[in-house]
Amino acid sequence: MDESSTIGIIGSGSWATAIAKMVLNNTDSLNWYFRNPEHIKNFKEIGHNPNYLTSVDFDVDKIFFSSDINEIVEKSDILIFVIPSAFLKDALVSLKAPLNNKFIVSAIKGLIPEENLIIGSFFHKYYQVPLNSIAVISGPCHAEEVALERLSYLTIACQDMKKGRFIASKLACSYVKTSVIDDIYGTEYAAVLKNVMAIAAGICHGLGYGDNFQAVLISNGIQEIKRFVDTVHPISRDIKSSAYLGDLLVTAYSQFSRNRTFGNMLGKGYSVKSAQLEMLMIAEGYYAVKSIVEINEKFKVNLPITEAVYRIIYEKVSPAIEIKLLTEQLR
Amino acid sequence: MDESSTIGIIGSGSWATAIAKMVLNNTDSLNWYFRNPEHIKNFKEIGHNPNYLTSVDFDVDKIFFSSDINEIVEKSDILIFVIPSAFLKDALVSLKAPLNNKFIVSAIKGLIPEENLIIGSFFHKYYQVPLNSIAVISGPCHAEEVALERLSYLTIACQDMKKGRFIASKLACSYVKTSVIDDIYGTEYAAVLKNVMAIAAGICHGLGYGDNFQAVLISNGIQEIKRFVDTVHPISRDIKSSAYLGDLLVTAYSQFSRNRTFGNMLGKGYSVKSAQLEMLMIAEGYYAVKSIVEINEKFKVNLPITEAVYRIIYEKVSPAIEIKLLTEQLR
Repeated sequence: MDESSTIGIIGSGSWATAIAKMVLNNTDSLNWYFRNPEHIKNFKEIGHNPNYLTSVDFDVDKIFFSSDINEIVEKSDILIFVIPSAFLKDALVSLKAPLNNKFIVSAIKGLIPEENLIIGSFFHKYYQVPLNSIAVISGPCHAEEVALERLSYLTIACQDMKKGRFIASKLACSYVKTSVIDDIYGTEYAAVLKNVMAIAAGICHGLGYGDNFQAVLISNGIQEIKRFVDTVHPISRDIKSSAYLGDLLVTAYSQFSRNRTFGNMLGKGYSVKSAQLEMLMIAEGYYAVKSIVEINEKFKVNLPITEAVYRIIYEKVSPAIEIKLLTEQLR
Repeated sequence: MDESSTIGIIGSGSWATAIAKMVLNNTDSLNWYFRNPEHIKNFKEIGHNPNYLTSVDFDVDKIFFSSDINEIVEKSDILIFVIPSAFLKDALVSLKAPLNNKFIVSAIKGLIPEENLIIGSFFHKYYQVPLNSIAVISGPCHAEEVALERLSYLTIACQDMKKGRFIASKLACSYVKTSVIDDIYGTEYAAVLKNVMAIAAGICHGLGYGDNFQAVLISNGIQEIKRFVDTVHPISRDIKSSAYLGDLLVTAYSQFSRNRTFGNMLGKGYSVKSAQLEMLMIAEGYYAVKSIVEINEKFKVNLPITEAVYRIIYEKVSPAIEIKLLTEQLR
């Protein structure tokens, strides 16, 4: 991996678009996979993503677009995956090019639902990507604020810190500061769990709990995340860092978080199905909470918030009752 | 201290009123000091505090009001102080009754400016109150939400845990859960520092920094608070608890926080003086930041956020420049 390495992005949503904007501050070319060829055609005509972060103009001459994932993979040394975790396997169905000689960067923040695997482990297990050729992009980062060039901080997790620093250098710019840590498991699990916490925050808000309680919930939430990641992957880490606590805060306190919105609708009395139909999308935390509860059957960590969200979503327990019980366990 | 102990409240603001509401769920009588006798007269006539939390009705037959602090002190075994720290010494000028045989509860969350002393240390030093007869009420708690009976969690810090539990039992009710810890120094310093962090959050918001950066600022803020309290009073504590992190979150993320509002005005270009005139009050953090910087001359803890706020307020450095420099130190 060196300055001649080519970068490919797999995904076309708002976070993919924000990452493309950052990368193009540091490179002269970019390969970019869009599933829908119509969107590529529109992008080239209007000079920006037709569906997301439409205020961000791109020099399309610098971008090689393709709706053939094999073409993007073959042309790229570094692949940044930015698609919802629930759709990753679908996106890879037509992939024939090998990945084990690529450097894989996950900006997905989710688990593969059927496998209960974090993204790094998934690529390692099924695509023979070496663990030190995997990095995770984490940190508190609304794509919309990157579009506005508001100062943001990203953490790049990679077991090979030198490679991590290289990836960081491809994202850093005047409005993005980066740091590098070696904790790919902890950052991925924390990023997954923060979506569960955001659903919980939304449920409580929907039920009428106030700011005092939200602060208690989030304080208990970061303690719960620490208990889980310290058990599943026991290495030294400071859970109060931006990569973990910061990521939780920006999601749980955001009015724009899909997960918080989903929870809010549940708290207000929507069924899971009707909330999903209303939102026209499925919040990542919906899958994540099930995976975490299943993974935790082995580890048996005390996860009262996660389990409450699980019972509300999958066992149809009344949010009012479940959160009332939860309040007895927090402090 | 037992069930026959009488409770007195010194202070008449919104937090004092919320505490009176909690206490009267658990006792049949309460002594309450108001500086202004006119306010007592109004309170008795209309059945609620004429100036704060006006929606909370009281059974005034249960309350002994007085604007003579000696009378309230003499009639009470337990005294809960709830006045701005900057005015505490003034309020005590006319006090002749001894305090060393009383149990003192601080709900003040500030430092005595001229002395750089936390409230507990002040009563211990000047009024010979034994350290195990001092408690601190902490935790994320907007008084307005207590008025609305929204679920809140308080932490009572007391070196004598049994006495702490007794005080907790006088505050707990259907909408207030309590827990007890032994860390009077840590809770007081953290409560003071969270106001400084809230000023910083306000300044950054006023300057146009977004939610991504706020999450990084608060994550760094709790780390800074931990560094300071662990140095000044090194005992085992979990800074992620509601008493510390929760208290920071509810203040720093609140639109209603006086400290955040003060910071916001500084960020938008108001001078310190004009912001204070506009607000008709002085935010606690204004005094606190000076005290902390002075106390830290001895301890030399790395406090980049606190020092930035200090330089903006007391050395008139431009907020834009100071925060730009701060961003280089955060991660």
